[in-house]
Amino acid sequence: MANKIERPLDLLNNSKGKEVIVSLKGGKQLVGTLLAFDIHINLVLDNAKELENGENKRNLGIVFLRGDTIIFISPAA
Amino acid sequence: MANKIERPLDLLNNSKGKEVIVSLKGGKQLVGTLLAFDIHINLVLDNAKELENGENKRNLGIVFLRGDTIIFISPAA
Amino acid sequence: MANKIERPLDLLNNSKGKEVIVSLKGGKQLVGTLLAFDIHINLVLDNAKELENGENKRNLGIVFLRGDTIIFISPAA
Amino acid sequence: MANKIERPLDLLNNSKGKEVIVSLKGGKQLVGTLLAFDIHINLVLDNAKELENGENKRNLGIVFLRGDTIIFISPAA
Amino acid sequence: MANKIERPLDLLNNSKGKEVIVSLKGGKQLVGTLLAFDIHINLVLDNAKELENGENKRNLGIVFLRGDTIIFISPAA
Amino acid sequence: MANKIERPLDLLNNSKGKEVIVSLKGGKQLVGTLLAFDIHINLVLDNAKELENGENKRNLGIVFLRGDTIIFISPAA
Amino acid sequence: MANKIERPLDLLNNSKGKEVIVSLKGGKQLVGTLLAFDIHINLVLDNAKELENGENKRNLGIVFLRGDTIIFISPAA
Repeated sequence: MANKIERPLDLLNNSKGKEVIVSLKGGKQLVGTLLAFDIHINLVLDNAKELENGENKRNLGIVFLRGDTIIFISPAA
Repeated sequence: MANKIERPLDLLNNSKGKEVIVSLKGGKQLVGTLLAFDIHINLVLDNAKELENGENKRNLGIVFLRGDTIIFISPAA
Repeated sequence: MANKIERPLDLLNNSKGKEVIVSLKGGKQLVGTLLAFDIHINLVLDNAKELENGENKRNLGIVFLRGDTIIFISPAA
Repeated sequence: MANKIERPLDLLNNSKGKEVIVSLKGGKQLVGTLLAFDIHINLVLDNAKELENGENKRNLGIVFLRGDTIIFISPAA
Repeated sequence: MANKIERPLDLLNNSKGKEVIVSLKGGKQLVGTLLAFDIHINLVLDNAKELENGENKRNLGIVFLRGDTIIFISPAA
Repeated sequence: MANKIERPLDLLNNSKGKEVIVSLKGGKQLVGTLLAFDIHINLVLDNAKELENGENKRNLGIVFLRGDTIIFISPAA
Repeated sequence: MANKIERPLDLLNNSKGKEVIVSLKGGKQLVGTLLAFDIHINLVLDNAKELENGENKRNLGIVFLRGDTIIFISPAA
């Protein structure tokens, strides 16, 4: 996947429809399928779960995530 | 619902008139019916309740929520 | 009131001259009559009181509140 | 005074030359005569005093206050 | 000096070449001669000293100070 | 490398395809190969690892890092 | 050097190629040779060292520093 990344948003575009891990500033971690993003890095995740120490803390379903709370986004391996 | 989401704000648009859970930066959680939103993600919730550990802490009625305090917004299941 | 809200600022407009509760980021809560607001959500409240645990902590009279410290604004029931 | 307030900055304009109390994000409180303000809510206070628990902590003379540290501004009663 | 202040930046302009006290968000305090400022309230202080409890903690010489860390700026009495 | 740096972004441009260490505001440190960056200093790192006390804490694979959480970026020696 | 400073960025321009001390919001301090800066006060330092209590904690080599984490920048005496 790394070969096609010329700008940072290309990685988000390549990750649409795939599961991503999102690390948030307050220490929360969410996992879900990336449905949409915009230039503010606002995201929509489907089948999202909140994780705590790698364990499923609760199911959130579909969520809108504000971009300014995000530290990093990583496609699940 | 996931099929119609092309941009993050589409999820908010689809959620108008429905109950949403809003997670805020300070640790607060609100639940209420989404009446309106704007591009700053400012929201108006009707019949809003503040939750603490999933329990109803107090009824707020109709509230204006500033977008920059929001972590995520999720339509109630 | 909920029927007339198309954009978030409509709620603030509808609340002019009425008592509102304002929750601030630092944990403070103010109650007062909403006299004015602008697009930054800067507010002027008249007969404002600072609350602590729902009790009146001190009377502030008329106050200018900076919008970026606000979490939510709710018309008093 | 409340009758003439149509926009939030009107209150600051009405308060020029009068004593105001300014509550800051870090917990500080200043009192002084409002000499000037701008749209960023930067202020100049004359004869400013820093307060601690309502007591005079130190005299600051004339001060420039950055608007983004301000929670609220209230004309002294 | 108070008579000539129409806008907040006038105070900074009047203070060029004079000693000012600068209070920063992280609790630091600097004293030095104000050489320059811009609209972001970035400052250059000459012969700057960092203070701790009013005592000289260390000499910094000439410093560039980022405006967004500043709470207030006061000409030394 | 230092000779060719005229603007800060030149260093990031020179570091493309190389391993960089990224220090984040929350105390996290990531190491990975810099694939892309933009003017917001959003980054994409490949083969990224999260470090704790210099030890590998977990492998993240390819990650999108939001620029506003970054303190510094340094090409690995 | 103080005579030639008309705007804050003049100090940074005069400091190119010289050793500077940079104090960061999180408490970190870096020392290094200033190679480049931009209007966001993003910096590139060469031969940068991270200091702790004035002691060399680790060598960073060449680093890109994000401007919004900086408190002050001072040319080493």
